[in-house]
Amino acid sequence: MHGFSDKIAQVAEDNRSPLVLALDPSVRFAGNIHRKAEIQANLLRKSLDLIEETSDLLAAVKINRHLILPLGLYGGILEILDRVKEAGLPSIVDAKINDIGNTNRWIAIHYLDAGFDAVIANPFVGWKGGLDVVFEEANERNKGVILLVYMSHPAAIEGYGRMTLDQKGKRLFYMVFAEKALEWGASGVVVGATHLAILEEIYDTLGEKIPIFAPGVGTQGGDPHLAQEAGAKYLIVGRTIFESVKPRDTIKQILTTLK
Amino acid sequence: MHGFSDKIAQVAEDNRSPLVLALDPSVRFAGNIHRKAEIQANLLRKSLDLIEETSDLLAAVKINRHLILPLGLYGGILEILDRVKEAGLPSIVDAKINDIGNTNRWIAIHYLDAGFDAVIANPFVGWKGGLDVVFEEANERNKGVILLVYMSHPAAIEGYGRMTLDQKGKRLFYMVFAEKALEWGASGVVVGATHLAILEEIYDTLGEKIPIFAPGVGTQGGDPHLAQEAGAKYLIVGRTIFESVKPRDTIKQILTTLK
Repeated sequence: MHGFSDKIAQVAEDNRSPLVLALDPSVRFAGNIHRKAEIQANLLRKSLDLIEETSDLLAAVKINRHLILPLGLYGGILEILDRVKEAGLPSIVDAKINDIGNTNRWIAIHYLDAGFDAVIANPFVGWKGGLDVVFEEANERNKGVILLVYMSHPAAIEGYGRMTLDQKGKRLFYMVFAEKALEWGASGVVVGATHLAILEEIYDTLGEKIPIFAPGVGTQGGDPHLAQEAGAKYLIVGRTIFESVKPRDTIKQILTTLK
Repeated sequence: MHGFSDKIAQVAEDNRSPLVLALDPSVRFAGNIHRKAEIQANLLRKSLDLIEETSDLLAAVKINRHLILPLGLYGGILEILDRVKEAGLPSIVDAKINDIGNTNRWIAIHYLDAGFDAVIANPFVGWKGGLDVVFEEANERNKGVILLVYMSHPAAIEGYGRMTLDQKGKRLFYMVFAEKALEWGASGVVVGATHLAILEEIYDTLGEKIPIFAPGVGTQGGDPHLAQEAGAKYLIVGRTIFESVKPRDTIKQILTTLK
């Protein structure tokens, strides 16, 4: 078992919550680079407050380029990671790694050594000289790799949902990715809560072997209860919580709809 | 015409060079986060020196997470971008954008407003709620979007080289991407110099309509002359220059092999 998988499962049980807080504000918070000190201060303060206010109702925290670009990995992100760790929560970096090996290794080392417990990667880049080194770096540190299998946005069908053909016959790309997740020993897969039939189909393949993380809950239209019914183990919620005036109430309201 | 396309074509002509310097060191330069001030200082110094020393022999500079993660977009990267601009070169950020619309827009705004002239994105995420907003933000600023069509690493065949099937029949994924590049109005495409037959096939489709950027020259094994013969307009060279003790000589040596 990976340290990450155990850690998130334990926290989810202790806090009776499958929710992963995504610190992803909507674009109106992006601000203007000419006032970067102000943007940095606002995003950092808001993130730290949210973690403090809601950590006992979460399974993990996910961080994406919304914070990494303005705050800097070696800047505000280290501060947020300290706070997440103090709160006893695992952290996931959603950088959707999809480069060549040398770059992927550099990215993985930087994020993992900064303190993240798991990285998200795109299996589209494949294994050799691609994601092989990401798994290597994560395994060495007893940390996790979560693979994208079907994303939550409308155009996911152009890539993840495309029909492909090989010696095994015709298969939709997301089913190929689900098989790669099993073969490579991923700690989790991402399947959009906005595509319930696909979520169910992927759950049928993975069973309890690899947990499904479902983003797209709330603002993007995904229903947390239905996503859970379809097989999602963890639900990723971002803007709905980030932009709520009463984030604890918003989370509690979501949790009441879940088993 | 996009401002970026014109700018890079003009600079390449003025400097008689199709070379894009990728500031991507190999992993042994990654250092350790416990000495982050030292890593930051070394990477920044090395990058600024290289630009100063070689700018008159280049068509553009490409920056990836090797520098962005340790230096910070609002930190050392702004300093490097100032130097690139002073040297009269266009800059490309190689973040291989592949997220949902809200995140992609956030990423594009941050990179473009920081001063980059073009962003690289992965067409695998598709258009609607995917890359549509990246093109929108770039077009608004008269800047460029370069699409990955076939990457330079061995496993590219698992994704970019996978056979796919739709109402138009059987097509390799990279040919679908080449068509999307035409349809979406990309300012360039990336095709690995390590795959000459594919490079030629993609050039046959794109002709002179969209320039091909070929990475993988040097350390990864691609031959600059052959890549140019196969249809690459710009050649991306990273480690071979970054790690040379005499970068000007290394560049001049490459340039003598080109037309």
